[in-house]
Amino acid sequence: MSMDAVRLVEVGARDGLQNEARCLPVDTRVALVERLADCGLRTIEAGAFVSPRWVPQMAGSDEVLRRVGQRPGVTYTALVPNLQGLDMALAAGCREVAVFAAASEAFSQKNINCSIAQSLARFEPVLAKALEQGVAVRGYVSCVLGCPFTGAVPVAQVVAVTQALYAMGCYEISLGDTIGTGTPEATHRLIEACAGSVPVTALAGHFHDTYGMAVANVQAAWQAGVRVFDSSVSGLGGCPYSPGATGNVATEELVYLFEGQGVATGVDLAKLIEVGVFIDSQLQRSGESRVAKALRARIR
Amino acid sequence: MSMDAVRLVEVGARDGLQNEARCLPVDTRVALVERLADCGLRTIEAGAFVSPRWVPQMAGSDEVLRRVGQRPGVTYTALVPNLQGLDMALAAGCREVAVFAAASEAFSQKNINCSIAQSLARFEPVLAKALEQGVAVRGYVSCVLGCPFTGAVPVAQVVAVTQALYAMGCYEISLGDTIGTGTPEATHRLIEACAGSVPVTALAGHFHDTYGMAVANVQAAWQAGVRVFDSSVSGLGGCPYSPGATGNVATEELVYLFEGQGVATGVDLAKLIEVGVFIDSQLQRSGESRVAKALRARIR
Repeated sequence: MSMDAVRLVEVGARDGLQNEARCLPVDTRVALVERLADCGLRTIEAGAFVSPRWVPQMAGSDEVLRRVGQRPGVTYTALVPNLQGLDMALAAGCREVAVFAAASEAFSQKNINCSIAQSLARFEPVLAKALEQGVAVRGYVSCVLGCPFTGAVPVAQVVAVTQALYAMGCYEISLGDTIGTGTPEATHRLIEACAGSVPVTALAGHFHDTYGMAVANVQAAWQAGVRVFDSSVSGLGGCPYSPGATGNVATEELVYLFEGQGVATGVDLAKLIEVGVFIDSQLQRSGESRVAKALRARIR
Repeated sequence: MSMDAVRLVEVGARDGLQNEARCLPVDTRVALVERLADCGLRTIEAGAFVSPRWVPQMAGSDEVLRRVGQRPGVTYTALVPNLQGLDMALAAGCREVAVFAAASEAFSQKNINCSIAQSLARFEPVLAKALEQGVAVRGYVSCVLGCPFTGAVPVAQVVAVTQALYAMGCYEISLGDTIGTGTPEATHRLIEACAGSVPVTALAGHFHDTYGMAVANVQAAWQAGVRVFDSSVSGLGGCPYSPGATGNVATEELVYLFEGQGVATGVDLAKLIEVGVFIDSQLQRSGESRVAKALRARIR
């Protein structure tokens, strides 16, 4: 009897760390990635090939990617903004990379300094070269349920960007509620709309818990057919648009949610909580996972 | 055009405060209740007529209930464990009271020192007298999705206690996930089961966010037809079974969830966030509402 299953994409070492104030050395980031793999996570975003001038937290990503031990069944991915980034990722041995587009024009301009169309045009040669080398490409779409600059984002715009990334060759499109303003109903409508244009199996959900809605949104996306979710150990990362607020949904919460509903994640929750304790101490932050808090309190 | 609506029962001044380490004086508790009413909350649990030896946080509940200003459309309620408590509540002018049963035998024994059947028998004269005086009675059922002592709680047991309280004359039964271990699917199944025995309009959902599931559980219960939810400003209250962990779901989160989905709550969110800041400063605690954190950060 095969159990229903979900795939969790651990983004703590990239999306998480890049939104923490403190920069961690390569050694610590390698240890984090290795420990996450030890927990049973099978897709781990480990770095970004972006300018360390803009994102100092990701400096040395090539070394991180080079040093993490290859394990059967585990994929380490990295963000690449352009061809130069892709070349660095390829040189570091990446077998999967990710490109990053926005569903909001204002966000695209302020975040990556070009229009949505320009960003998609920039990704085309990246996709072509990556696929030619047998490297899988994942696409991120940010601001799918709201933009920090313009508020509401039309669903049709999300669908258009999703479709473009899929047509370009992204095997999976991660729909990101970057500012965490989405609700379960809006999530459900969004997934249904996107699944009208690309296979629902090519969609992933990426929810931020800034307004406490992330777990409910994950559940709504799951009900709409999504089987892949991004999350971050201990809820690493914050929200640059609401300083001090919560960022990525904690991986612990998604493991609890899914396992509690009979859906296998393959993740060892007790081990994962230890990894959260480790990385929080390195960052001198307090963790954001309520599951971790509750279980650690019970164990004490 | 009438908008879909939900009724929020604010339990911060009772279920919340009684699980905070610090005891607040009557003045502060009266101010809290008044401010909650100012936000548009229409059902506010303001105290408990229990022994101050066991629950020092609720000492002076009679004075709190006596002093809060009567307002058209606002109901102040209090917990009464027995006839003596009811008499005190009646003397303080309560027009609504609540009784408290458990769905778990072990919890009933440890929490109120009697079996479930004994507690129901004890409530019968309380209900009879209250109803005779035209005072409405709400029933709580705790441990509906798990017990801190025995783990799983059979749905049939929750249904039986719910049915008994309804048959006794409780106009509404609040189903409490006391330790916050429930998931959305379990919540949905539970509501469907209870709604097979009492009208779904007589059910309320009372979720704790100990494992970060509360908002998702509220949404699941809403989808199953529940239109009344208990919550606590700023997530007041903790979990006695997981010290340091989260307790009641924050009212701010439910206002955000419902208003964001086009469901009227009647609550002024900005004002509510100010009430949270006020009471958190009195308790010298940091708030548990992510909505409050995000909106306060944005405003700054």
